[in-house]
Amino acid sequence: MRIDDELQADLIATAAVLADAARPVTLQYFRSRNLIADNKLEQDFDPVTIADREAEQAMRSVLGALRPDDGIYGEEFGQSPGTSGLTWVLDPIDGTRSFISGAPTWGVLVAVNAGDAPLYGIIDQPFIGERFSGGFGQAEVTGPYGRLDLATRPCNDLADAVLFSTFPEIGTRAEYQAFGALSSHCRLTRYGMDCYAYAMIAAGQIDLVVEAGLSAYDVQAPIAVIEAAGGIVTNWQGGPAHAGGQILAAGNRDIHKAAMAFLNAD
Amino acid sequence: MRIDDELQADLIATAAVLADAARPVTLQYFRSRNLIADNKLEQDFDPVTIADREAEQAMRSVLGALRPDDGIYGEEFGQSPGTSGLTWVLDPIDGTRSFISGAPTWGVLVAVNAGDAPLYGIIDQPFIGERFSGGFGQAEVTGPYGRLDLATRPCNDLADAVLFSTFPEIGTRAEYQAFGALSSHCRLTRYGMDCYAYAMIAAGQIDLVVEAGLSAYDVQAPIAVIEAAGGIVTNWQGGPAHAGGQILAAGNRDIHKAAMAFLNAD
Repeated sequence: MRIDDELQADLIATAAVLADAARPVTLQYFRSRNLIADNKLEQDFDPVTIADREAEQAMRSVLGALRPDDGIYGEEFGQSPGTSGLTWVLDPIDGTRSFISGAPTWGVLVAVNAGDAPLYGIIDQPFIGERFSGGFGQAEVTGPYGRLDLATRPCNDLADAVLFSTFPEIGTRAEYQAFGALSSHCRLTRYGMDCYAYAMIAAGQIDLVVEAGLSAYDVQAPIAVIEAAGGIVTNWQGGPAHAGGQILAAGNRDIHKAAMAFLNAD
Repeated sequence: MRIDDELQADLIATAAVLADAARPVTLQYFRSRNLIADNKLEQDFDPVTIADREAEQAMRSVLGALRPDDGIYGEEFGQSPGTSGLTWVLDPIDGTRSFISGAPTWGVLVAVNAGDAPLYGIIDQPFIGERFSGGFGQAEVTGPYGRLDLATRPCNDLADAVLFSTFPEIGTRAEYQAFGALSSHCRLTRYGMDCYAYAMIAAGQIDLVVEAGLSAYDVQAPIAVIEAAGGIVTNWQGGPAHAGGQILAAGNRDIHKAAMAFLNAD
């Protein structure tokens, strides 16, 4: 579909309103003493908080008012088909484990697509007040220190690369072993940052994020922000990542290629 | 030694000036594009940045002006004996790996002791502008959301407990296995927060931090803040932790006892 300048401006403005709407809702519950964390899956620990649900509801209300013909795919309330050809992909709190631990590295993820790869996305960290956005030819962070352009860094040697993943226990045994092979060749491997790690690729602070088992709502906003900042996000085989699954996010094509070799070695 | 009200007030004020002095120095280098990270130890990756050195120098200058008779023990420049019986323990950037990755979970650590356990301490996070302090009967956090009292939470069952450690690869093989035994009984284990995890115990957000191989300057400020907020910090055998080594920090005595049983099992 054709996205003219007027529509671009409207999508950018709508994304900002969505992230603005989620901020007070999430902050109302962040670091509260009696946060309820239901277990979404019985065996894994996957907390869904009231904050998660209320934040998505707040964003859905915004879309109902501003762009009622667009579709919505949200982590908490699933698919709501639209008629415009555009779909908003929402993760009200990416990093619920960080959220319930008081850590300031969770985020609100907002992306919009026309059927496949995201056109524009926001990674918002409400507690710090930082907003990373990218798409339609712009990539920037705004926050307590003002506005800065986002740009990935040119690191092209794994021996100089900083790698992040949310958990040390990555996916299946084979995925864990592939990650370990890559990690052993990197300068530094760190864990625990959720969506904030993707923002740090876009900000030129780290080089790689590798994860497995992600959903579309976990990855579409990071894809938009990182690619607008000069990076690349694919699955472990180099194919499209916007549907989720195994994710390899990199600051540039060289380091992406070097990392992919280890993720696909036998 | 006797610490009267006047001296208490002076130590609290001095600690704040120290943390204030370190903030602009660290922020000048945080997220800069060309941060120099020397390897302090040849085999391990232990970056020492210019920021680390300059921040400690700034704090040493403050002490030279305000409290020239006190001793100093700093991560970067070591021991400087004093004559007052008081020693300032300084870690200009705790969490240099977070720092060089752009993550907002490093901190400036300031503590003061009269020979053994810390009397007062500050965990300062300059980028967010959060300051956790404790000792002399007070425990508080100040920052972008104002001032709050710090208080640990009453969790007394490992099945409900959130455990943090900086790296999944904890110390020696025996230490790694003991940590794993404890972790497997906790509700959630997370990595990567450095000193910010200790602050989250004091803020009642998490329950346990377990680490090995720490130094006095890594742990004295966390001890002061956590104990002032109602928690307990010891080594893995329940003895004093202020000299560093194996650290078990807990929100209360019940969860501390439950965790210690796993760390000392054979």
